Amino acid sequence: MLTGAVKRIDHVAVVVRSLEAALAFYRDTLGLSPSRVLNFPAEGVKIAFLPMGGPGGSEIELLEPIDPAGSVARFIEKRGEGLHHICLEVPDIDRALAELRAAGAVVLDEAPRPTAEGRGLFLHPRGTGGVLLELVQRDDAAP
Amino acid sequence: MLTGAVKRIDHVAVVVRSLEAALAFYRDTLGLSPSRVLNFPAEGVKIAFLPMGGPGGSEIELLEPIDPAGSVARFIEKRGEGLHHICLEVPDIDRALAELRAAGAVVLDEAPRPTAEGRGLFLHPRGTGGVLLELVQRDDAAP
Repeated sequence: MLTGAVKRIDHVAVVVRSLEAALAFYRDTLGLSPSRVLNFPAEGVKIAFLPMGGPGGSEIELLEPIDPAGSVARFIEKRGEGLHHICLEVPDIDRALAELRAAGAVVLDEAPRPTAEGRGLFLHPRGTGGVLLELVQRDDAAP
Repeated sequence: MLTGAVKRIDHVAVVVRSLEAALAFYRDTLGLSPSRVLNFPAEGVKIAFLPMGGPGGSEIELLEPIDPAGSVARFIEKRGEGLHHICLEVPDIDRALAELRAAGAVVLDEAPRPTAEGRGLFLHPRGTGGVLLELVQRDDAAP
């Protein structure tokens, strides 16, 4: 078991064809204001961050593919728009990786990868009840 | 736009074939303790609630079908295990329903339905970037 407890749901990622079209609903109808919108070329996406619940709350991240060869573009081609992954915040991603491997979890990363929030890793859906699950240690985590 | 701001992500729902098999990962590997496990026959499911982040944090809900004719059983047959919906907490579900209708959102409920948390409604994925989206007013919400 992870000795560093999961802190919270960091974000839930939703893949969309167009951030602007999705924001017409999430921003203009639901009233969620993007805290930032940025390109994250390492994953081939442009991301709009929609925070809720104040400090420590969880976010929805809207992901629009910007690289037609990237995994998010391929996800849309295959499955259409929709829920992509859940990300949980952990205090120590290196320890989590070691403990997950020891527990036999199917980790998709050899080492933590740079993410938009810090350093993360992904777990294969076959060991998580069908969910692509990310764990992240945030660069801006409280000590 | 909703005049009562979305308070937070209330929960993210994951459909699984077996709660026990899923808990072998979520509880025994990740260390998330179910706060409760209950049958919710109105939706044909048994639910394990996995809270994180302390009071006001968001939960993962694991849903196991208990009614072979229910929508969650049909979801598994068609798509397999995995992410099912996101639920956002709102302060006033009746007002949200009226405002969503006025905004042209595709609401799947004529009136708020009883849910495991309070009173909720679902929005069709075609208006939300492919996400089955629930809004809920919790029975135990702070005033």
